[in-house]
Amino acid sequence: MESTTVTDMIERALDAIRFGPDGLVPAIAQQHDTGEILMLAWMNRDAVRASLTEGRACYWSRSRGKLWRKGETSGQVQVLRELRIDCDGDAVLLMVDQDGVACHTGRRSCFFRAWRDGAWTITAAPQIPPEILYPDTVGR
Amino acid sequence: MESTTVTDMIERALDAIRFGPDGLVPAIAQQHDTGEILMLAWMNRDAVRASLTEGRACYWSRSRGKLWRKGETSGQVQVLRELRIDCDGDAVLLMVDQDGVACHTGRRSCFFRAWRDGAWTITAAPQIPPEILYPDTVGR
Repeated sequence: MESTTVTDMIERALDAIRFGPDGLVPAIAQQHDTGEILMLAWMNRDAVRASLTEGRACYWSRSRGKLWRKGETSGQVQVLRELRIDCDGDAVLLMVDQDGVACHTGRRSCFFRAWRDGAWTITAAPQIPPEILYPDTVGR
Repeated sequence: MESTTVTDMIERALDAIRFGPDGLVPAIAQQHDTGEILMLAWMNRDAVRASLTEGRACYWSRSRGKLWRKGETSGQVQVLRELRIDCDGDAVLLMVDQDGVACHTGRRSCFFRAWRDGAWTITAAPQIPPEILYPDTVGR
């Protein structure tokens, strides 16, 4: 009975989210304590369900067309601290504890390009070489 | 000549942004000093151009189908401190100085619903009554 109740609750959580015509909503990942914005990704119903059930950020990969448990390849898991939605219910905020780095370039945040004085400026260096994050894919 | 140069620069900024098939990218507005996430909205090329030119957040309103200078009705302007893009160039981060509140409900942030203990919990109260923000529209 317990698992049914939890499932029912998660379905209620899903009912408040207005997924787009493609079944997706944008999801912001923010480091829960520092406020740093780590990345923006996309979630479908299954991704929200998996995130709430498993307590870790899970997205829908538009490029790969499948569920994407953040960190499943790189090890850079995002532990879910809180899931929020906005006033319209069509955007999600994941407050997470990021293990290591969020960006596939090895940077803590994906938002490392700032428009300053008429040019895109790199604001952060990689903390981990991408070839260590993705040893089986980089260079192919 | 000066204005031509500025225009050229902004077109170069736009070239790095990968707008979706609908001509839009999601844009996160973050209070630049506290790190608080204020809202998520959408931008097209004209919205990015206007934001960079005018130094204030300008979005594309999907519901109204027109350019939306944040604060034009409510007075709650977002002064643009920095515009960033993510690693893929398909998401924008606006670091802003929010005048008053970001949310049409009168709350500082639109993300005021958190999933806690199996229910959506309101995390913040309105700071300004919506009827003061939108005296000509509320109640109609």
